Amino acid sequence: MGEVFKKEAYGLAVKDESGVLSPFRFSRRETGEKDVRFKVLFCGICHTDLSMAKNEWGFTTYPLVPGHEIVGVVTEVGAKVTKFNAGDKVGVGYMVSSCRSCETCTDDQENYCPKMIITSGAKYYDDTITYGGYSDHMVCEEDYIIRIPENLPLDVTAPLLCAGTTVYSPMKYHGLDRPGIHIGVVGLGGLGHVAVKFAKAMGTKVTVISTSDRKRDEAISRLGADLFLVSRDPEQMKDAMGTMDGIIDTVSATHPLLPLLDLLKYKGKLIMVGAPDKPLELPVLPLIFGKKMVVGSMVGGIKETQEMMDLAGKHNITADIELISADYVNTAMERLEKADVRYRFVIDVANTLKPTP
Amino acid sequence: MGEVFKKEAYGLAVKDESGVLSPFRFSRRETGEKDVRFKVLFCGICHTDLSMAKNEWGFTTYPLVPGHEIVGVVTEVGAKVTKFNAGDKVGVGYMVSSCRSCETCTDDQENYCPKMIITSGAKYYDDTITYGGYSDHMVCEEDYIIRIPENLPLDVTAPLLCAGTTVYSPMKYHGLDRPGIHIGVVGLGGLGHVAVKFAKAMGTKVTVISTSDRKRDEAISRLGADLFLVSRDPEQMKDAMGTMDGIIDTVSATHPLLPLLDLLKYKGKLIMVGAPDKPLELPVLPLIFGKKMVVGSMVGGIKETQEMMDLAGKHNITADIELISADYVNTAMERLEKADVRYRFVIDVANTLKPTP
Repeated sequence: MGEVFKKEAYGLAVKDESGVLSPFRFSRRETGEKDVRFKVLFCGICHTDLSMAKNEWGFTTYPLVPGHEIVGVVTEVGAKVTKFNAGDKVGVGYMVSSCRSCETCTDDQENYCPKMIITSGAKYYDDTITYGGYSDHMVCEEDYIIRIPENLPLDVTAPLLCAGTTVYSPMKYHGLDRPGIHIGVVGLGGLGHVAVKFAKAMGTKVTVISTSDRKRDEAISRLGADLFLVSRDPEQMKDAMGTMDGIIDTVSATHPLLPLLDLLKYKGKLIMVGAPDKPLELPVLPLIFGKKMVVGSMVGGIKETQEMMDLAGKHNITADIELISADYVNTAMERLEKADVRYRFVIDVANTLKPTP
Repeated sequence: MGEVFKKEAYGLAVKDESGVLSPFRFSRRETGEKDVRFKVLFCGICHTDLSMAKNEWGFTTYPLVPGHEIVGVVTEVGAKVTKFNAGDKVGVGYMVSSCRSCETCTDDQENYCPKMIITSGAKYYDDTITYGGYSDHMVCEEDYIIRIPENLPLDVTAPLLCAGTTVYSPMKYHGLDRPGIHIGVVGLGGLGHVAVKFAKAMGTKVTVISTSDRKRDEAISRLGADLFLVSRDPEQMKDAMGTMDGIIDTVSATHPLLPLLDLLKYKGKLIMVGAPDKPLELPVLPLIFGKKMVVGSMVGGIKETQEMMDLAGKHNITADIELISADYVNTAMERLEKADVRYRFVIDVANTLKPTP
C-alpha cells in the first residue's frame, strides 16, 4: 500500500484522550480517477469534534485530525470526475464514502449506511485512516463532494456542511418544511441558530425554546424567529401547549422531554439531533394520548445536503461564526465545552495553518 | 334534562377508589334519531378498566360503569339511522362520540379528538355520565357503532373492539402491514396475542419478545408467531439486532427500551401501546444513529376499527378468552392485576348479569 501515500499533508491532530490538538504531518492518497483534490480554506468546529477528541463515545482512534465542515477550492480532479473542475468551490461534510448499494445508500441516506466512512477517524478502503479538515488539503470521491453556491461567503458557509444538513434533513424528511407548519427549536447554539434560519426560509412559523430570556432579542431580531418561549416559565409553556407540529431538539445535555412533548400537537414530532450521552426520561402517556413521536436524526445524505446548500444559496443562509486562527483552536475547544461561542467557531485554515516543521 | 332519563338500565359499577364492582341501577337516554340501542351480550375486561376503577390516572369519576369492548344485538334504531337494523350484531369500543369537525376527526382519527367522549366515565352532551358495557344495554350514535362480521362468535370478538384496534391501527398507519415486514411483539397478553394474529394475517414475519422462555410454545404453535426471542438472553438478542421494521410494545410495566431499539433496523419504529405510568429511560444515540423512532398510539379511529373487524372476519381472527360470569368480575380484576389471564376476560353479560334488586 506504500504507493498510496504520495502527497504530503499537514494539519492539527489530537494524539490522546487529553483532547489537545498539536501540529501533525501525514500523507494523503494520490488523486484517483473519481477523486477531487482541494485546498482547504475554512473548517468549522462541530461539537462532535470535541466528543471525538476526548473519546467520549469510546471509538476514537489516535492520532485524530478532526473537522467535517470543510470548504475549499478544487486544485485537481481525477480522469473520470465529471461534476467538478479545478477552481470550483466545494465542501465536504460528515462522510467521505459509503457502500453505495445498501438500503440506506439507495435511499439517498448514505449517512445511515452501516459501511459509511466518516471524514475523520475512520478506516478507508486502502486501510489508511481518514483525516479531517483541520488540514491543508483534502482528497475525496466526487460523489461525496458538495458544490458551494457562488454567492455564499465560504467562512460562514463551512458550518452548513454538518450543522445545516443536520437540521435541514429531518425538517424535510418529516414534512416540516412548508408554510402553515409551526416548528420549535430547542437550544440556540451551532445547530439551533441555523435551524431557525432554514425553518424561516421554508416558510414555517418558528418558536425558539430556551431556558432563560437571555437570547430573546437575538432569536427574534437577529435570527428572525417568530416567538420565544422560556421553558422554565410554566405560564408561557402552558399557553403554548399543543401548538407545534415539530420540535428540533439540539440540546446535548440531559434535559426533560415532557415539557417538549406537551408543546406538540396531535401527531407532533420531537426530533433529537443533539446527542445526550445519558438516557433521558421518556413519559409514555403523552406519546400515546397524542400519537406523538420521538425520533432521532443524524446529519443528512449527500443529495439532501446539496439541496440544503442550494436553498442556503437561494436565501443567503449562512452560519453566525467566530473566525479563529489555527493557533487558537485549543482555546476554542475549551470555550466550546462551556457553550461559550456564538454560534460556531470556524478555523481560517488557509491563512493561519502553518506547515508543520 | 329530566326527560332524557327514560330507559331503566342496570349494571356493575365501581363506587370509589377501592375499585370494587357492585350492582348499580341507572338510566340511559331514549333512542335518538341517530342512535342505535342494543342489548349487551358480552363485554371484555381491558386493563384500562382496572386503571380507571382505581383512579390510577387521576381523572375517574364515580360511580363508574366500565367496559369498552362491547358486543350485542340491536334492539331499536332511531328514525334517521341508515346503517343498522334491529337484529344486527354490533360492537362499541373506546368512544361513543367526538366533535366530528376537528383535524383528528376529519382525519378519521376520532380517537385523538380533544372532545372525544369515551364510553365509560365521560360527560355526554346531555350532561349525563357515560356508562360502559358492564351493563344490560347500550345506546350509541350510529357513527360510533362497529358492525360485527356474521362468521365471528361474539364472545371472542368483544376484545377486538379495543385490543384489536389498538394493535391494528399503528401497524396500518406506520406501514407495517404487508409481507416483507418483520414485526416484533413485546408482551404476550391481551394486546400482544391479538397483535401476533393480525400481524400474521397481514403477511408479516412476527417475532414474540418475552422475558422468559415460558410462552415459546404458546407463541409459535398456538398463535402462529415465526420466532420467539428471550429478552434476557444476550446472545439471542445480539443475533436479532437490526432485524425488525417495527415493534409493538404492549408492556405497561417499567421496562428497558435500549434492547428493543437495538432490535430495530434503520428507520425502525418502536410503537408504544402499553401505558407505563412512570417515565422510561430513553437512550438517544441509538435513535440518532439509526433514524429510529419511538411513537405512541391509542386505540383506533372508527373507520380503521371497522377495517380491523372486517379483516378479522376474513381471517377468522378472534381473541383467546376466559368467559366469566358477572359475579366473578371482582376476582377477575384481581387476577388481571397479576396478569393472570389467558388472554382476556370476557363477561357473559346477557346470561349472567342479573337485574339489580
